[in-house]
Amino acid sequence: MAELQELTRTNDVNALRSWLEETGALDIADELARLDPEDRAIPFRLLAKDRALEVFELLDPIHQQELLESLREERVRELVESMEPDDRVRLLDEMPAKVANRLRAGLSSDERQLTAILLGYPPESAGRMMTPEYVNLRASMSVADALAKVRRSGEAAETIYLLPVTDDQRKLLGVISLRDLVLADSARRVGDLMRTEVHSVDVDADQEEVARLIQEADVLVVPVVDHEDRLVGVVTVDDAMEVFEREVTEDVSRAGGVEPLERPYLSVGPFHLARKRAVWLLFLGIAAALTVNVLTAFEATLEQISTLAVFIPLLIDTGGNSGAQASTVVIRAMAVDEIRFRDLPRVVSRELLVGVMLGAMLGALAFPLVTLFFGAEFGVIIASTLFVIVIWATFAGAALPMLAKRLGLDPAVLSAPIITTLVDATGLLIYLGIAITVLADQLTLAALSPFGL
Amino acid sequence: MAELQELTRTNDVNALRSWLEETGALDIADELARLDPEDRAIPFRLLAKDRALEVFELLDPIHQQELLESLREERVRELVESMEPDDRVRLLDEMPAKVANRLRAGLSSDERQLTAILLGYPPESAGRMMTPEYVNLRASMSVADALAKVRRSGEAAETIYLLPVTDDQRKLLGVISLRDLVLADSARRVGDLMRTEVHSVDVDADQEEVARLIQEADVLVVPVVDHEDRLVGVVTVDDAMEVFEREVTEDVSRAGGVEPLERPYLSVGPFHLARKRAVWLLFLGIAAALTVNVLTAFEATLEQISTLAVFIPLLIDTGGNSGAQASTVVIRAMAVDEIRFRDLPRVVSRELLVGVMLGAMLGALAFPLVTLFFGAEFGVIIASTLFVIVIWATFAGAALPMLAKRLGLDPAVLSAPIITTLVDATGLLIYLGIAITVLADQLTLAALSPFGL
Repeated sequence: MAELQELTRTNDVNALRSWLEETGALDIADELARLDPEDRAIPFRLLAKDRALEVFELLDPIHQQELLESLREERVRELVESMEPDDRVRLLDEMPAKVANRLRAGLSSDERQLTAILLGYPPESAGRMMTPEYVNLRASMSVADALAKVRRSGEAAETIYLLPVTDDQRKLLGVISLRDLVLADSARRVGDLMRTEVHSVDVDADQEEVARLIQEADVLVVPVVDHEDRLVGVVTVDDAMEVFEREVTEDVSRAGGVEPLERPYLSVGPFHLARKRAVWLLFLGIAAALTVNVLTAFEATLEQISTLAVFIPLLIDTGGNSGAQASTVVIRAMAVDEIRFRDLPRVVSRELLVGVMLGAMLGALAFPLVTLFFGAEFGVIIASTLFVIVIWATFAGAALPMLAKRLGLDPAVLSAPIITTLVDATGLLIYLGIAITVLADQLTLAALSPFGL
Repeated sequence: MAELQELTRTNDVNALRSWLEETGALDIADELARLDPEDRAIPFRLLAKDRALEVFELLDPIHQQELLESLREERVRELVESMEPDDRVRLLDEMPAKVANRLRAGLSSDERQLTAILLGYPPESAGRMMTPEYVNLRASMSVADALAKVRRSGEAAETIYLLPVTDDQRKLLGVISLRDLVLADSARRVGDLMRTEVHSVDVDADQEEVARLIQEADVLVVPVVDHEDRLVGVVTVDDAMEVFEREVTEDVSRAGGVEPLERPYLSVGPFHLARKRAVWLLFLGIAAALTVNVLTAFEATLEQISTLAVFIPLLIDTGGNSGAQASTVVIRAMAVDEIRFRDLPRVVSRELLVGVMLGAMLGALAFPLVTLFFGAEFGVIIASTLFVIVIWATFAGAALPMLAKRLGLDPAVLSAPIITTLVDATGLLIYLGIAITVLADQLTLAALSPFGL
C-alpha cells in the first residue's frame, strides 16, 4: 500500500486520486487519522460525496472535529446533517460549546430536535448512546403489515434488526427480530411471534451496564425505556463495542497509574501527556515518602548493620509484585462480574492460601542462596521476611480493591501502583522487625530502639 | 431477587420452579455460574426444554462443560447437538480430548461434519470462530428470489443479516445486508445492489485481527474466505466481542505480572491461582536480585553514610512508577493501533520531553523538603537523582515495549512490572553515582571505590 503521507506531501493530485480509488474506506480513515491535522482536508476533498461520508463516519470523533475545522461551512453542514444522531451527539459532546452550538443551529429542524433529545440525558447514560430512529410495530399487525411498515420507514432508522413492539401509550410490550419476521408466515400476528422477555435498559442506565448487557445476552440491539416503561430509543452493538474500548482504556490506564487519554496518543501534545501522569506520580511519591520516615526511624540499625540496606529493593519489589498480581486478578474478575462483594470471604481465604504457597516458595529458594553469601542469620531474616511480606501483600492486593468498590470508588484506583506503594512501608516494618529480633544480641540499645526491645 | 443458592440448598422444588419462571434467562445463567458445580444440575433439570437450551447457550464454555458432566447422556447429546457450530467448537476445545471425542461421536452426521471442519483450522484463527451455516446468494437473483431463498434456508443459519454473494466456484463477489434486501424493490437484481468493497478475512487470520476489523468497520458479520478467495464461513459480532474480552484479560493480566486465567476466578483452585503467578514472581525476583549485587558493591558507601539507605525505596518506587506510566500508555496505544513501529522516533522524543517535565517537577518539590530535614547536600542528591531517574524510566518504559513488538514478542511482556524491576538496578547506579560525586570529600577511598574515583 502506498503511503498517503508521502502522496499528500508531494501534492500529486492524480496519484492521490488513484490511491483513494484503490483503497478501502476503512484504510483511508486509518491513514487519514495518521496524517497531521492540517493535511487531512486535501485527500478528503478529493473523495466522492458518498464515499466521503462513509470515511467520515469511520473516523474518531476527535479526528472528525479536526477535519471539520478545515472544511468549508456548507460541506460541514452536509456531513453533520447526514450522521446518525448518536454519533453526532458524541461529536458535539467533544467540541468546544461555541462550535457545537453553531453546528447544531445549522441542522435541519428534524435532526436538530433528535440531537437535542439525546443531549438532554446525562453524560455516559443509555440516553446519550441510543438512537431515537427505530421502527416500532404494533402487536395487532400481521407479519405482512409489519414488513410493509419496515419497508416504508426503515430507510431512516439506524437499525431495523430489532423491532420493538409497543402499545398506544408507547409502552414496550415485546420485541421481534427482523430475522423472525422475515422467516415467519406472513399471515401470523406480530403479537404471537414477539418475545416478551425483553432485555431493555432504563434511559438513565450507565453506558457500561448497557454494553455488558448487550454482550452477555448476545443481542445486537437493546431497547431503551423511560421511567414509565415507554420506549424512547434503541442502543446498537457497535456503540456497545465503543463503550467497551473506552472502559478498557480507562481501567488499563488506572492500573498503570495514569489518567486515561481521551484522544489518540499521537494527537495530544507532550504537555498534556505529562499532565495526565503528574497527579498520580506525585500522589504515589508522597505515599512512598512514608518509607523515608520508616527508614529514618531505623537509621541507627542500618548504620550498625549496613548489609540490611542491601536487601531493601529486593524485598519491597517482591512484596509489590505479589500485591500487584493479586489486585490485577481481583480487579479483572470484578470488571467482568465474576466476583461480587459478597464473595469477599471466599476471595480472601483463597488469596491467603495463594500467598502462603508463593511466600513459602520464595522463602525456600532465598534461604540457601542468602546463607551462602551472607551467613545463616541473614538467610533466616530474608527467607522469613519474604514469606510474611508475600502473604501480607497478596491479602492487601485482593481485599483493598473489593473494599474500594464497596465504598463506591473505582476499584482500579486501588490497583497495582497504589498497592505496591502501600505495601512498601509496611513491608519495611516487617523486614526490620524481623531483623532486629534475629540480630538483637549484635545491636546496641539505640539500634533496637524503634521497637523499644 | 431471591437467591438461587439458598433455594437449591433447601431443595424446595416448588420455590425453585417459581423462581425459574419469574427470572430471565440471562439472570438464571448468571446465578447458575455462581453455584457450586455439583448444585447446578438440580435447577437446570427443572427448566423447560427450550429455555434450558437458551440458558445453556448463555453459560461460559467451562460452566457448560461442568454442567454436562452432571446430566444424563441423552440430555447431553440434545444440548450439544442444538448448539451453534462455533460455540460447540469452543466447548469441545476446552474439554478433555476423551470426553470431546465421545460427545462428537454422539452428534448427527451433519453436525459432526460441521464441527470437524472448524476443528481443522488452527486455534485462535478465523476458521475456529466462524460458523459454516450462512445463506449465500447469486448475483443473478432478483430481490424476490433472494428473499425466498432466505426464507427457505435461513432457519438453520446462525445469521442472515449479511448475505454473501458468490459465483459458481463459491468465489466471494460481494455482500448484501438483509436490511438492504428488505428495503429494496423486489424486481431489482442482487448483483446491482450488493456491496463489492467487502471486509472479508482469510480463514487463517488471527482472531484478534478479525475482531478489530468488525469493530473498526462497524459491521455485524464478516465473511471468511480460503486462499482461493472461496467463501467458507462468516464470523458474527458476538464472537468478536468474546475475543476482545479474552484479549483484554490477557493484556491486563500480563500488565499486572500474572498469566491470564482461562476460567472464571471462583472456578479455579488456589493451587492453580498460585501457579499462574509463580513463574512471573520468580522471574521478577531474580531480576530484582540484581539490586542486591549493585548495593553490595556500594556497601562501604552505605556503611559510612547510612542516610543514603533511607531514600532507596522512595527513589526506586518513583522510577518504577514513571516507567510503568510510560509503558502503560504506549502498550495501550499499540493495542488499539494508534502507534506502530515506524512512529518510534516520534514516541521516544515526546516521552523524553514528558520525562523532563515530570522529573523537573518532582526534583523541584523534593529539593526544599529534603534540604530542610537532611541538609543541602542531600537536597541536591535526591533532587537530581529524581530528575535523571524519571527521564531514564520514562524513556525505557516507552521504547522497550515498542522494540519487543518489533522482535515479535507480546509487548505486554515488557509492561509495568518488568520495566519497574529493570529500572530499579539502573536507578540505584544513578543514585549512588550522583551521591558519591556530591559527597566525595566525606568518603574514604573504600567508599568511593565502585566508581574508582
